[in-house]
Amino acid sequence: MTRTVYVNGDYLPETEAKVSVFDRGFLMADGVYEVTSVLGGKLIDFQGHCVRLARSLSELDMTNPMTDAEWLAMHRELVAQNGIQDGMIYLQVTRGNPGDRDFAFPGPDVTPTVVAFTQAKPGLAENPQAAIGIRVISIPDIRWGRRDIKTVQLLYPSMGKMMAKKAGVDDAWFVEEGHVTEGTSNNAYIVKGNRIITRPLSSDILHGITRAAVLRFAAEAQMVVEERLFTVEEAKQADEAFISSASAFVMPVVELDGAQIGTGKPGKLVPRLREIYLEEMRKAAI
Amino acid sequence: MTRTVYVNGDYLPETEAKVSVFDRGFLMADGVYEVTSVLGGKLIDFQGHCVRLARSLSELDMTNPMTDAEWLAMHRELVAQNGIQDGMIYLQVTRGNPGDRDFAFPGPDVTPTVVAFTQAKPGLAENPQAAIGIRVISIPDIRWGRRDIKTVQLLYPSMGKMMAKKAGVDDAWFVEEGHVTEGTSNNAYIVKGNRIITRPLSSDILHGITRAAVLRFAAEAQMVVEERLFTVEEAKQADEAFISSASAFVMPVVELDGAQIGTGKPGKLVPRLREIYLEEMRKAAI
Repeated sequence: MTRTVYVNGDYLPETEAKVSVFDRGFLMADGVYEVTSVLGGKLIDFQGHCVRLARSLSELDMTNPMTDAEWLAMHRELVAQNGIQDGMIYLQVTRGNPGDRDFAFPGPDVTPTVVAFTQAKPGLAENPQAAIGIRVISIPDIRWGRRDIKTVQLLYPSMGKMMAKKAGVDDAWFVEEGHVTEGTSNNAYIVKGNRIITRPLSSDILHGITRAAVLRFAAEAQMVVEERLFTVEEAKQADEAFISSASAFVMPVVELDGAQIGTGKPGKLVPRLREIYLEEMRKAAI
Repeated sequence: MTRTVYVNGDYLPETEAKVSVFDRGFLMADGVYEVTSVLGGKLIDFQGHCVRLARSLSELDMTNPMTDAEWLAMHRELVAQNGIQDGMIYLQVTRGNPGDRDFAFPGPDVTPTVVAFTQAKPGLAENPQAAIGIRVISIPDIRWGRRDIKTVQLLYPSMGKMMAKKAGVDDAWFVEEGHVTEGTSNNAYIVKGNRIITRPLSSDILHGITRAAVLRFAAEAQMVVEERLFTVEEAKQADEAFISSASAFVMPVVELDGAQIGTGKPGKLVPRLREIYLEEMRKAAI
């Protein structure tokens, strides 16, 4: 089946979904994005993604081209047209197409480019990997300094995934000045007893929508949340570890740089947190 | 007149020059570029740009989709079809369009996307700004760690140009750990007496094609080239300062963070170096 893709107001067959070569998203990585999960045909934490999108755009002095209600309607239309039960919706907003290349931002007459498409992932929430956990390596974090803005400057995270692949593992954790920042496309956590330890929000890491929900649910479930830096060594000594993202939800990490974390299998806290997260988010899905 | 733009083997009217929304250049800034100047209808330092392009591609494990002879033929065809006397040719190569979004690099069946277009700039070498010089501000360098690869991750350089604009000046110099790295889209130099001081090559800065030529000509003209770090304070105390890039050539810098450099007007060494550079490069143009 050919996907239907949204491009600047039009719903097009995916093979016709194109942007100008002068689009600033293509020439200068001048764009931001969001990925929203779909479970049972409904959007997970959609409001959170709208709020973060608005923040990313605002930090880059870009206009938000739609209201939250319009974003929602467009997302629902894509879900419907593509018959998505479980999967993701990718949304990208760029500073638009000024018709030529110039480092300076174009004037207000140039409107943002909006592109969105679906990715069907049947059984997304029943990913068998969650029962085994993933293995990661640590790599230096050499990304730019504003990782709190969800830009499309994803070359290094991409390279990180390839380094992980080459090392025979699933993903990589970035390390800066001795401390873990986050995963290539997810936030990183370790667990000691009943305590969940994760890096505090700053421009060093993405302000994960899933992270915010997970920490809220953890506190409600009487787990202790400790937002502070942690090292690779400390992570190796942890009882459990995990990552969170909009599409991986809560995923156990069982190995770091070849060292087994805890028993080398998903522990007790992380699977429980995954269960709570999925249950609560399904209830709140729209 | 409508420009003719090159896209993957086709010469198209600029309004029809498009790439898939699934192109990795658009979704992940997974692409590199080169800008070659044209003077009198001929390409300036073209071989240098071919060598750097090959290096950028190789550093990112991307295939070079053309031979140097093919790159040259395509550049000449664009110059001819667009009647360019003076101006630039922009060339971008991305990892291509795998038909969907995934952080992992696609397999070898996905071929790179190649886009190239001209920008006419009549009188490019006679830019009146060269007689006045430009004014710059310093801003923190928060770019990623592999600035030696000429990727399209140009959001922060773009933001830097806007910071300069807001400050009422022409451009910005990046500063990292107290030392100037380079300009937003050019290499940075200061002059003390007969000595030209510029940061040595590393992953901290772009390996400027113009930089290499300028330093070679400077040495030939009995100027002393000192490749070492320098601070903003040292730059303010310099006799002269300048930037170099493929399209600005050698351009005097007469003010940094509001402080006049030297007399506040282009000195003697920099205009002479600009003259030598343009003369030699015109001679060698192809």
